Amino acid sequence: MERLSLYAIATGVVALVIALGLYFRVKSAPEGNERMSTIAKYIREGAMAFLVREYKVLAIYSAVVSALLFVGFNSQGLGLHSALAFISGAGLSLLAGFFGMKAATYANVRTTEAARTQGKAAALVMALDGGAVMGLCVAGLGLIGLGAILQIFGGAEGHTFGTIIHSFAVGASSIALFARIGGGIYTKAADVGADIVGKVEANIPEDDPRNPGVIADNVGDNVGDVAGMGADIYESYVAAIVAAMALALTMPVSELQRLSPETTEEGALRALGIAFPVLLATVGLIVSIGAIFVTRALGKMPPATVLRLALILPPILTIAAAFFVLPMVGIATAAVTALAAGAIGGAVVGLITDYYTSMKPVRDIAQAALTGPGTAVIRGLAVGMESCAVPLLTLCAVGYFANDVLGLYGIALSAVGMLAGTAVVMTVDAYGPIADNGGGISEMSGLGPDVRAITDELDAVGNTTAAVGKGFAIGSAVLTVVSLFAAFSMEVNVGRVARGEEVLTLNLIDSNVLIGLLLGSILPCLVGASTMNAVGRAAGAIVEEIRRQFREIPGLREGAPGAEPQPAAIVDLATSAAIKEMLMPGAVAIIAPVLIGFLLGAQVLAGALAGALAVGATLSLLMANAGGAWDNAKKFIEKGGLTGHAKGSDAHKAAVVGDTVGDPFKDTSGPGVSILIKVMAVVSLLIAPLLS
Amino acid sequence: MERLSLYAIATGVVALVIALGLYFRVKSAPEGNERMSTIAKYIREGAMAFLVREYKVLAIYSAVVSALLFVGFNSQGLGLHSALAFISGAGLSLLAGFFGMKAATYANVRTTEAARTQGKAAALVMALDGGAVMGLCVAGLGLIGLGAILQIFGGAEGHTFGTIIHSFAVGASSIALFARIGGGIYTKAADVGADIVGKVEANIPEDDPRNPGVIADNVGDNVGDVAGMGADIYESYVAAIVAAMALALTMPVSELQRLSPETTEEGALRALGIAFPVLLATVGLIVSIGAIFVTRALGKMPPATVLRLALILPPILTIAAAFFVLPMVGIATAAVTALAAGAIGGAVVGLITDYYTSMKPVRDIAQAALTGPGTAVIRGLAVGMESCAVPLLTLCAVGYFANDVLGLYGIALSAVGMLAGTAVVMTVDAYGPIADNGGGISEMSGLGPDVRAITDELDAVGNTTAAVGKGFAIGSAVLTVVSLFAAFSMEVNVGRVARGEEVLTLNLIDSNVLIGLLLGSILPCLVGASTMNAVGRAAGAIVEEIRRQFREIPGLREGAPGAEPQPAAIVDLATSAAIKEMLMPGAVAIIAPVLIGFLLGAQVLAGALAGALAVGATLSLLMANAGGAWDNAKKFIEKGGLTGHAKGSDAHKAAVVGDTVGDPFKDTSGPGVSILIKVMAVVSLLIAPLLS
Repeated sequence: MERLSLYAIATGVVALVIALGLYFRVKSAPEGNERMSTIAKYIREGAMAFLVREYKVLAIYSAVVSALLFVGFNSQGLGLHSALAFISGAGLSLLAGFFGMKAATYANVRTTEAARTQGKAAALVMALDGGAVMGLCVAGLGLIGLGAILQIFGGAEGHTFGTIIHSFAVGASSIALFARIGGGIYTKAADVGADIVGKVEANIPEDDPRNPGVIADNVGDNVGDVAGMGADIYESYVAAIVAAMALALTMPVSELQRLSPETTEEGALRALGIAFPVLLATVGLIVSIGAIFVTRALGKMPPATVLRLALILPPILTIAAAFFVLPMVGIATAAVTALAAGAIGGAVVGLITDYYTSMKPVRDIAQAALTGPGTAVIRGLAVGMESCAVPLLTLCAVGYFANDVLGLYGIALSAVGMLAGTAVVMTVDAYGPIADNGGGISEMSGLGPDVRAITDELDAVGNTTAAVGKGFAIGSAVLTVVSLFAAFSMEVNVGRVARGEEVLTLNLIDSNVLIGLLLGSILPCLVGASTMNAVGRAAGAIVEEIRRQFREIPGLREGAPGAEPQPAAIVDLATSAAIKEMLMPGAVAIIAPVLIGFLLGAQVLAGALAGALAVGATLSLLMANAGGAWDNAKKFIEKGGLTGHAKGSDAHKAAVVGDTVGDPFKDTSGPGVSILIKVMAVVSLLIAPLLS
Repeated sequence: MERLSLYAIATGVVALVIALGLYFRVKSAPEGNERMSTIAKYIREGAMAFLVREYKVLAIYSAVVSALLFVGFNSQGLGLHSALAFISGAGLSLLAGFFGMKAATYANVRTTEAARTQGKAAALVMALDGGAVMGLCVAGLGLIGLGAILQIFGGAEGHTFGTIIHSFAVGASSIALFARIGGGIYTKAADVGADIVGKVEANIPEDDPRNPGVIADNVGDNVGDVAGMGADIYESYVAAIVAAMALALTMPVSELQRLSPETTEEGALRALGIAFPVLLATVGLIVSIGAIFVTRALGKMPPATVLRLALILPPILTIAAAFFVLPMVGIATAAVTALAAGAIGGAVVGLITDYYTSMKPVRDIAQAALTGPGTAVIRGLAVGMESCAVPLLTLCAVGYFANDVLGLYGIALSAVGMLAGTAVVMTVDAYGPIADNGGGISEMSGLGPDVRAITDELDAVGNTTAAVGKGFAIGSAVLTVVSLFAAFSMEVNVGRVARGEEVLTLNLIDSNVLIGLLLGSILPCLVGASTMNAVGRAAGAIVEEIRRQFREIPGLREGAPGAEPQPAAIVDLATSAAIKEMLMPGAVAIIAPVLIGFLLGAQVLAGALAGALAVGATLSLLMANAGGAWDNAKKFIEKGGLTGHAKGSDAHKAAVVGDTVGDPFKDTSGPGVSILIKVMAVVSLLIAPLLS
């Protein structure tokens, strides 16, 4: 185990080198004709402009928080450690987002060009390569960061090490929070805004080059679904590993003993418990790199099969590897059970998500659309509520088994197991918006139905994998929050015991805890409401600007030669709006636990975390799944699923209303709520030792 | 305090006698012309037919549960006690529902007749009298039941007394659950069904006599908003008092000491703690009777003022009475603080509800309707989410103050304080559907615009008070559940200590509790989904039948003389559908805690209660307030609130979509979820001593 951290860093570096190779492969591929290249340039520049402005804001935020951390932990001599760890966690997240989005904005147009000149298989591989840059950066940079911390501070005293990893996780989390919410607001405001004027008012098809909002819509896919999602998954990955490490630092040693019955010395046991999740992640990344190459080699098979295979391979291979390798290094098979529970649970949650967003429930919503938009919305909300049940039951079962073999540490390991294939999950996730962009570019460049047919097929598969990816993200978030929560509770008392104070029980019978429960349950609702309203406001501003262009640019609506839209104005507007609107919900998530903790105490904060977890888990599942189901119900009708009710019929219009509601649900508020609960838990864990 | 139970029973009897007097006053008033009387007869018979069929099902349910209770508690020699107490709790609920609905279905047509012949003031008083029968029956029967138990078993051993009051509360709760869900499904299925065919397809106005669904729609107001709401409020009233009693039985005596510092003997202290909530309820009922008469006397003032006064008077008078009386009987002013916190908190929650369902947020939704139904729905959902914050913060503050002065017992007292004015709140609540029915009857009888103007005004005020009433109901539900939850936790350990077992902590760090938290958070979602779907299915069946009548009865749509609709067929259909559909969600609520408790243990059940509370409180507030806001946004546009977008405009149609979603939200699923969490808590408290 001693040189594990070096192996982890080495694996991460290998992943980055491969990512770099893929990046240059993508970049060197042909970009197509001039029109394609111009459109791609607009999208790339718009996306980069957003990222730069967002990063400026985040730089200020990071400077302020690291100053606060420096002051807050200075009395314990850990001010510099905490501030630097925070900056590292945040910085690596920014780097991953930057590389990944850069690759995605090169890959989109090259996917279109590959579809045009080489056919489906080449286009699929191009989109996958673009996604793989993000996937490998996310996992590689995460592992390098944690490996480096383990390498440098692995021998430090527990409290020091704890503060460093917690600060690192807070850095990762808070960047993810803003990137996810900001990107989510951008993408949906542009999408809804472009659709309202384009499809509904001006009656021109999606992605039509006359619509000044189309470029912003395509930029949104990159900043929301690539950069935002990447930051989110990076955060999950880091937080899950940190939660397991934090528990290994503080949990009763008798519990930890079950991880390695032969290790008897407490220090060695804790060191093993801290290193083990990094080992798992290293194995997971090696397996994932293999899976990415296998997937690329299968490019000739149907895309749906290739992508499903990509999601299933890593967990199976990781479990198999763990089953053979772990006993050799003296680790009990209990760890394999916890790991397998997480990996299998993740797959089950993904499948259930797939069911609710593409099978019978979708047809039910389409049927309900026959009696109007009201019933379509009602049915979709009911589907969303119902869809919480089996995923949460599955997570309960995962938690039960994992806890049974290894206690709370086992639950943390199950989350790591669920995320072992992160590099692949992220690859497939980023593939979606690249294919979507590719389709948009082919439409805007007027490439004709053959090319569009290929990009449409690639895009459709991406929609399903996106839903499955969201299931994974929420599932791992819930398990991670449970582990972080447990770590928080331990940490609170570690501090108290060290100060010679009475142990604080977080008993549900205590009125402080109960009041906290109610207080915490408010927060997901507030973040949900403010992000929904933000999308509404930003979309409204975009609608006004598009209307202005149609009004003031002669011949634009009719497509007269020489009448060019001004997409840069819309991109600017969306950028400013998203950055402004992300601040409030983001601040709530970070400030609320700090305020509750310092003003009302650790018991109220514990209750608040529990309340936020319960409401946040259900609300984010509800929103993600209802949104996905509405989207596909609309597509189901468009493909002729309801005989006699084609595109443009009343039933289709009713389904479009559902989809309009579902857009911010699934891509802004749902992910925002899910990341809220992670951020709250990580921040609480960090401040736990400071609470009285 | 010794003769308190007799005073309570006497006060209850006085309330019933007054109710009887008002009932006969209503019944003896003139019924109007033949057409009015025929329509009223249809409504009355339809409502009674539903009640009879519902009661038959509930009789079977009660027989089964009381047999189970007999067996379950037989080993402790309490089988007969538990079964009889359950039947009493259930029976009194049925009685209150029966009397109240009978009175309401007489008062509706007589309100119309009073408006026609005597004017607004007389009509207002008639509707209030009809509502007061329900209000006085609910509080009177509740107080008689609990007073009788106190009188007969007040001296019994703690465990015996506990089992009896818990069983009584379970009886009240489970009837309320079915009545609320069944009535809610009926009323919204009939409403949505009648509207879809009537307003949307056949293009005839609301309450038009040609629509075969109108009678069922009016029946629905009675079975849902009178009988269902009555059972719900009766249950809140009983459960709040029982929660306080249960805590007095089991909480540490040192805590209870603060209620009466001069009482030193434990037995006397516990007896005082048990009797005190009944004393408060007695004072509250006396004050409420006075308030009802004051309100009646003010009939000449504007209806909105009269009803607001009616809601504000009782809490103020109760606090004042408590402030002077309690110190005389040796009770600390701390009790007044707890009481006042609850009463004031209830008023604040009511005001906030009023704000979200009638002020700026409503205008925001109307504005959002300008860009289509999608944005109207998004905005309404955001309003609903946002509206959870201040009410829950208020309840946290109430809990904090109450706990500060009197511990968990204080929180229970605050719930009793919030419900002290139950008789008046229920009167005003039942007033709403009576006035609504009155309007429907005047429309169906073709009484002309003057009469309709009066009934419309009375109805509009009723809408606001209904929203405020819902705020009260949810607020008291949350506080009651918190107290019941605390009582449950105590009770679990009382049993364990008695059996010489280790004390079970319900620590949030325990993985069982955390798994329970996730498990419990599923349940409100399931009940929400199943009730939404139930309304959808039942409304669909009604739509088919109305369409059939329009198709097969010649001249019906055109209003040809002699072409009569067949309302009885619709009433039958709605009745069967509602009774069938209420079983599944009802069963979930009752069976889930039993299964979780016996299969997974008390810790998981405690976690599940916490999870269900967090999700249930937010979800029911969200649904109730979003529903109310959508309804009023539609009305705002109808009244010309958006210049240039009158009734029938696209903006109005968009708002109607919001209202369609809001209908099952506010009258079926929201109340269903709120009662779910109460039922779960009461059932858990009852089975706590049986859990291992």
